[in-house]
Amino acid sequence: MEQSFNSRLLDNAVAELSKLPGIGQKTALRLALHLLRQESNVAMDLGNSIIEMRKNIRYCQRCHNISENEICPVCSNPKRDSHTVCVVENVKDVITVEATREHKGLYHVLGGLISPLDGVSPSDLEIDSLVDRVEKEGITEVILALSPTMEGDTTNFYIYRKLAHLPVKVTMLARGLSIGNELEYADELTLGRSIQNRMLFSDTFHDKF
Amino acid sequence: MEQSFNSRLLDNAVAELSKLPGIGQKTALRLALHLLRQESNVAMDLGNSIIEMRKNIRYCQRCHNISENEICPVCSNPKRDSHTVCVVENVKDVITVEATREHKGLYHVLGGLISPLDGVSPSDLEIDSLVDRVEKEGITEVILALSPTMEGDTTNFYIYRKLAHLPVKVTMLARGLSIGNELEYADELTLGRSIQNRMLFSDTFHDKF
Repeated sequence: MEQSFNSRLLDNAVAELSKLPGIGQKTALRLALHLLRQESNVAMDLGNSIIEMRKNIRYCQRCHNISENEICPVCSNPKRDSHTVCVVENVKDVITVEATREHKGLYHVLGGLISPLDGVSPSDLEIDSLVDRVEKEGITEVILALSPTMEGDTTNFYIYRKLAHLPVKVTMLARGLSIGNELEYADELTLGRSIQNRMLFSDTFHDKF
Repeated sequence: MEQSFNSRLLDNAVAELSKLPGIGQKTALRLALHLLRQESNVAMDLGNSIIEMRKNIRYCQRCHNISENEICPVCSNPKRDSHTVCVVENVKDVITVEATREHKGLYHVLGGLISPLDGVSPSDLEIDSLVDRVEKEGITEVILALSPTMEGDTTNFYIYRKLAHLPVKVTMLARGLSIGNELEYADELTLGRSIQNRMLFSDTFHDKF
């Protein structure tokens, strides 16, 4: 249902805005007209911030978090405990866990969860590089901070088995999280508690396996 | 509640995105991370389309609709009936009326409605320029297409009085039942008005039969 708004430039901006997730044609038009009403610098700053971000942000070579340099600020911060690594699904989860201020260690971003139905297999994720880090960086604890969903559980178990031969403690977030919910919707207090009360992964075997 | 996402560039994009109406901090972050995940050109196209739109779109000197030139495509279209002008509150309403394909004339965008409570007085709106157009452009009908609210009614009446001394027909959008809605859901005021302003059934024949 393409509409034409009597201006190719407006059409264009509306088309690009409506490619964003959750933004339909109507909302895109509302946003574009809002930008036209504001002082010119509002639209310029927005456009440039998006372009600059995409142009200059890359991924940390160590933990795969977003970064402006080869190594991200968390990995290069000497005050962080480099023996503890928190494994998360994606970049957003790094931000979510950081907001709790309960995790003093480093991160490892998998880039997804194992999901045969969606065609995501372990080799699509940063799991081998995690094993590599555990082998080489003297990591003593891996905290599995994945969503409490079937995909999260599958990935937890896969990683646990991959690390079984190494002298590393594998823990997971306490199940204070409501099962079936995405990690990003958990409130900070609940998430913080689940970091404090993280459990030995092997202790959960009687539940599931 | 400013959060820092370990990247000044991401912080920046999130801050700019969350200035958009209806987009909070969480949604802005979701949009920014989405743009980081996509191919680079998605973010580039979005950023550039916003910048180009804001840089090159201005307002039609005649009707104050958005335009890429001094005079907008509607005003400069010789097929439009230049004797009939539809008065609307804003640019969005031009698009809404155009979508009906019922108006063959030109537009005049007021830029708002008279609203003493919000500090909008007649001099803040393009009312004098409307009177000027009616005087100089040989306009024979002004269609008031403002919202059926108190502000819309006030503005309708103010414009009506301003045009009273000129040989122009002033009409307004019909007030009545929404087509397709059940009678029992119509509010009493609307229903009352549609009884007062009841139409000859035979006058509707050309529409339907």
